[in-house]
Amino acid sequence: MRIVVTNCNTTQSMTEEIVRGARAAAGPGTTVLGLTPAWGPESAEGWLDSYLSAAAVLDTLRTYEGPYDAVVMAGFGEHGREGVRELVDVPVVDITEAAAHLACLLGRRYGVVTTLERSAGQIEDSLDTAGVGRNCAAVVGTGLGVLDLGDPERTEAAFVAAAGRARDAGAEVLVLGCAGMTGLQRAVGEKLGLPVVDGVGAAVKLAESLVSLGLTTSRAGGYAKPLPKRRVWGPPSE
Amino acid sequence: MRIVVTNCNTTQSMTEEIVRGARAAAGPGTTVLGLTPAWGPESAEGWLDSYLSAAAVLDTLRTYEGPYDAVVMAGFGEHGREGVRELVDVPVVDITEAAAHLACLLGRRYGVVTTLERSAGQIEDSLDTAGVGRNCAAVVGTGLGVLDLGDPERTEAAFVAAAGRARDAGAEVLVLGCAGMTGLQRAVGEKLGLPVVDGVGAAVKLAESLVSLGLTTSRAGGYAKPLPKRRVWGPPSE
Amino acid sequence: MRIVVTNCNTTQSMTEEIVRGARAAAGPGTTVLGLTPAWGPESAEGWLDSYLSAAAVLDTLRTYEGPYDAVVMAGFGEHGREGVRELVDVPVVDITEAAAHLACLLGRRYGVVTTLERSAGQIEDSLDTAGVGRNCAAVVGTGLGVLDLGDPERTEAAFVAAAGRARDAGAEVLVLGCAGMTGLQRAVGEKLGLPVVDGVGAAVKLAESLVSLGLTTSRAGGYAKPLPKRRVWGPPSE
Amino acid sequence: MRIVVTNCNTTQSMTEEIVRGARAAAGPGTTVLGLTPAWGPESAEGWLDSYLSAAAVLDTLRTYEGPYDAVVMAGFGEHGREGVRELVDVPVVDITEAAAHLACLLGRRYGVVTTLERSAGQIEDSLDTAGVGRNCAAVVGTGLGVLDLGDPERTEAAFVAAAGRARDAGAEVLVLGCAGMTGLQRAVGEKLGLPVVDGVGAAVKLAESLVSLGLTTSRAGGYAKPLPKRRVWGPPSE
Amino acid sequence: MRIVVTNCNTTQSMTEEIVRGARAAAGPGTTVLGLTPAWGPESAEGWLDSYLSAAAVLDTLRTYEGPYDAVVMAGFGEHGREGVRELVDVPVVDITEAAAHLACLLGRRYGVVTTLERSAGQIEDSLDTAGVGRNCAAVVGTGLGVLDLGDPERTEAAFVAAAGRARDAGAEVLVLGCAGMTGLQRAVGEKLGLPVVDGVGAAVKLAESLVSLGLTTSRAGGYAKPLPKRRVWGPPSE
Amino acid sequence: MRIVVTNCNTTQSMTEEIVRGARAAAGPGTTVLGLTPAWGPESAEGWLDSYLSAAAVLDTLRTYEGPYDAVVMAGFGEHGREGVRELVDVPVVDITEAAAHLACLLGRRYGVVTTLERSAGQIEDSLDTAGVGRNCAAVVGTGLGVLDLGDPERTEAAFVAAAGRARDAGAEVLVLGCAGMTGLQRAVGEKLGLPVVDGVGAAVKLAESLVSLGLTTSRAGGYAKPLPKRRVWGPPSE
Repeated sequence: MRIVVTNCNTTQSMTEEIVRGARAAAGPGTTVLGLTPAWGPESAEGWLDSYLSAAAVLDTLRTYEGPYDAVVMAGFGEHGREGVRELVDVPVVDITEAAAHLACLLGRRYGVVTTLERSAGQIEDSLDTAGVGRNCAAVVGTGLGVLDLGDPERTEAAFVAAAGRARDAGAEVLVLGCAGMTGLQRAVGEKLGLPVVDGVGAAVKLAESLVSLGLTTSRAGGYAKPLPKRRVWGPPSE
Repeated sequence: MRIVVTNCNTTQSMTEEIVRGARAAAGPGTTVLGLTPAWGPESAEGWLDSYLSAAAVLDTLRTYEGPYDAVVMAGFGEHGREGVRELVDVPVVDITEAAAHLACLLGRRYGVVTTLERSAGQIEDSLDTAGVGRNCAAVVGTGLGVLDLGDPERTEAAFVAAAGRARDAGAEVLVLGCAGMTGLQRAVGEKLGLPVVDGVGAAVKLAESLVSLGLTTSRAGGYAKPLPKRRVWGPPSE
Repeated sequence: MRIVVTNCNTTQSMTEEIVRGARAAAGPGTTVLGLTPAWGPESAEGWLDSYLSAAAVLDTLRTYEGPYDAVVMAGFGEHGREGVRELVDVPVVDITEAAAHLACLLGRRYGVVTTLERSAGQIEDSLDTAGVGRNCAAVVGTGLGVLDLGDPERTEAAFVAAAGRARDAGAEVLVLGCAGMTGLQRAVGEKLGLPVVDGVGAAVKLAESLVSLGLTTSRAGGYAKPLPKRRVWGPPSE
Repeated sequence: MRIVVTNCNTTQSMTEEIVRGARAAAGPGTTVLGLTPAWGPESAEGWLDSYLSAAAVLDTLRTYEGPYDAVVMAGFGEHGREGVRELVDVPVVDITEAAAHLACLLGRRYGVVTTLERSAGQIEDSLDTAGVGRNCAAVVGTGLGVLDLGDPERTEAAFVAAAGRARDAGAEVLVLGCAGMTGLQRAVGEKLGLPVVDGVGAAVKLAESLVSLGLTTSRAGGYAKPLPKRRVWGPPSE
Repeated sequence: MRIVVTNCNTTQSMTEEIVRGARAAAGPGTTVLGLTPAWGPESAEGWLDSYLSAAAVLDTLRTYEGPYDAVVMAGFGEHGREGVRELVDVPVVDITEAAAHLACLLGRRYGVVTTLERSAGQIEDSLDTAGVGRNCAAVVGTGLGVLDLGDPERTEAAFVAAAGRARDAGAEVLVLGCAGMTGLQRAVGEKLGLPVVDGVGAAVKLAESLVSLGLTTSRAGGYAKPLPKRRVWGPPSE
Repeated sequence: MRIVVTNCNTTQSMTEEIVRGARAAAGPGTTVLGLTPAWGPESAEGWLDSYLSAAAVLDTLRTYEGPYDAVVMAGFGEHGREGVRELVDVPVVDITEAAAHLACLLGRRYGVVTTLERSAGQIEDSLDTAGVGRNCAAVVGTGLGVLDLGDPERTEAAFVAAAGRARDAGAEVLVLGCAGMTGLQRAVGEKLGLPVVDGVGAAVKLAESLVSLGLTTSRAGGYAKPLPKRRVWGPPSE
């Protein structure tokens, strides 16, 4: 089975890190291929970045010739999920919803620890529309930007502090709220005594599950195939 | 006061129609200027179109030098609203939320009549996240595509049929669920005996209201200014 | 256009203050006329006052001969809104819902700062039934009674303290939760770095919007005209 | 124990009918006394009537010297409940909430059958704010006005027809949605094979329950005693 | 009238205490009979205990030959309620829902003070599915186990401390969240200045109310009689 | 990896059928072992059966010595899930929630087709408390009992008819609402043109996912280990 993992930003090193995390989670027969959008933001932090990223990821998949059996969208809280479901004929799993689905199986309430506080609203909306917002006790920020996650000690300390606030709000399970946090889950989980779900790994397992069960997106309703029409994917070159 | 109205698609004639509707609603001191994205879909019908449109509209405003006092986003149920709120320093009103806000003042429950049934989910999510979903009794489709709205008789008949279903679901007020329906409200309202709210007119009035009250988007929280970073707005030219 | 603004209490000086606020917000072609109920409470602070006020305001409008194009109800969180919608043939806007509608356009979550803590429940119910409760992060009291708002410094200090609690609960926008606070919004907004919405101004703009769009209350459903019957408006004189 | 039952309208014969129903439900040691407001509407059908009724009922209780141990408010879906809780020192039970509380104990979902369809919204709001709206499957109207309930056969037929719609919407228990329907429950219950709850009887039992458990309204919060102030209860006599 | 009160655990002394509380609340014509399950947990503290208790209580009632007019289930937050409604032909009232129903009549928001924090989730789910969760401001634990409630001073102090947290969360009324706390309500209520509802007393009054109104569980829907089939109530003896 | 699948009833042939379905879904390195409770109902259809089943399944696992890496609970809409999470140290997945989690990834709204209509309420509650109820459009019954599922043609026809009602209510994806329906998904999916999710397969994949990610139930909160105490698992033998 071949899973395409799309980074939501243009930073190639982050794609590589995500692919490492995805491969660590993937089963023996699964090949993971990372795609970095050729355009978009270098990191997605806020609504404007998120919408720009959504179009760039759609364009990346639209022009990627495959073949592949599933798509994992590795932008936590980022937009585009439903558009990709329309576009491709294979199952699509977004790391935001994936982490929440698994977290619901591990405790009554989960909390998300993300990068900047400003992203909390986007993540809440993404969980709500995915249908898994009910058991989310809190979305809290660490105050670190996506590209500040390079320093593992600082990241871990900030994560643990934010996680405490999530636990106080009722979270019994934690979710890593950024694809760039992948790898942190084990160290942090031990320190906190709570299960920590990484969305990239969760999404890989859910994508494998859907593929092996022969399930894919319903075409009856909102995720029907895009209508044929004229679309221009980016500004005219000058 | 100068209001910029952004069409969500690349169809210039639709921008013109929208601008006509906006001008009909605008107060004496208000100038309305329509912007048509240079890229994106020729009509927005579904999630993929909507995300492509969101990026194109953001790019259009990013590169538009103004000056202007408010933005009206004329894509019913389309994405991008929150990104534009981050981008510009003036109030931003989306026609989806605008129509719903006014509809709430006119009856206990409102219904939305839109083009294709497949858009209903997007519209529901847009109303929910805007905070005005509670009093929405139904979102129903006419079965007509955006670019089929040219024939007024057919459009009116389809609208009246769909409106009946919304009324049966409890709607006391109707909302025109597509910018291209602007102009239909009076004829249809009389036939149905219900108030019919057009989002373009509603958004113009709300934008004027915010400007004249000296109010603009909060920067404290989700709609903080976009962080300075490297962003590429469209694919590299080959 | 002629807008009637109804005070919810019998204190004439408060009507005058509200009318000043309404006129400051009104457009050039709008005339504002204030009505003070001839009976009811001297200030509305709690449910009993609110229900008494609702009947008195209805009686005031019932016996007012007009003409007028819209009604603004200037009692924050007070009852009566739906009854006035039944009674008159012109649009009716309550300052509670009006402030919330505009606040939703300015941030993801808003908070209301009101007078006494005891009014919080009434305001929450009023926002919920108006369909705009979802994005309300908190309703907090200043501890000041309606008739204590005369001292501007004390009011401002109490407001700023309460506003801090609303912000901590997630509010990105503030709403002045009492008609008697009108005028405070600019001073306080600067101090807090948040947009502050005054319901009186908001309601005037929304009323003007509805009138200029030719929209009025739906008669199909809950807001049908009152049935003709015997009604006695007040106790028999002895 | 002495329970005061307040009719919501000025129709003395209806008070008598309600008192008959209340007495039929009351325990051996309970005395029931009916109060008819000296002013207000002759029947409450819609929001305007409801607000007028609320003030009149408050005035009735304010000037009633008692003594009494509990108040039952016999206006289905009518306003005033919270104001009476502020006013008196004894428990207050409204027939709307009372019927819903008992209905929740008898099935997973209940339905309300009321008089005119126009009252449905008021009833829904009343159930929601009372905290028992979740299990309400539907509020349906019979099309009969309050004062049309005199003809038992016609009333029963209309009730049974409307009840069918409630059952189709999931109701396993029915609630008589008008104080004037009291007495209908047994005949109709047998015909339908569903339990039918009459709010007047339900409220009497709940009031007796609270009194005998020594429980009364909390003064900590929204239902604190009304503040002493100048209030005028009705228009100045001319 | 004869009410059967089922303890949820096998501790006979706790049944006796519960029966004392039930008798204190019961009306003059009511006989209360306590049943202690012959199997199950000695105290119910958590989900496993709760499910074991549910089966044991069902078995107890299944094999109890009566006669009786109503069942009160005296396990706060414990499972089984709906199963007993299927099993018996008389009204069934669970102390969890009973306390909440009465609490809703006494203030806008109530709080539950229970034994161990771990039970909070179960109680929240029980209130939600009973249809009375909306007005619950908080469920807080005292940190005391069910069998630690013997020391009245320690229990009272722990209760008062936990109650303070519920009040801060908005509770205007308190609910004793364990059958073993019955008797505490008066002492604690005075100290706190808040009404305190004991579920056992509340359930007895509600059961009496239903019986005297001639109401019992609906058979139309979820609570139809159990289908005849082979059921084994416990492991085969070896 | 070794997964234990617990049937919720005592019918051995049904366990075998479930195990067949589980094995068909399991990955190459997974061993599936079915457990049939030694006591309980021969089929679970309603609340009483469900609570009896919950205790029997807990007893089955409590006395099963393993080893195993995960538990799949194969009773659709049945109770016990949270108790098993307390009891065992490995991940626990219930087929109800599992099907819903995967269904959420395949469409905006899903519908459940179950056996008897009477089970709908139980299933709704199970989905709600699992945190995945939001996107459930409808739970509909086929009118067939659990033990009537033996006739494949009749079952398929009844399923297809019920599925039509779910689709009309907005379902874009279907869930097989009974473990005994496993195997039906492919035939029915083709006929309907909708993805059909079988809970047994879904739960096996989710259990494998959790195990391979090293995740298990949180002990911090509601799912802490059962407290040591005296528990009697079944009636005393006579």
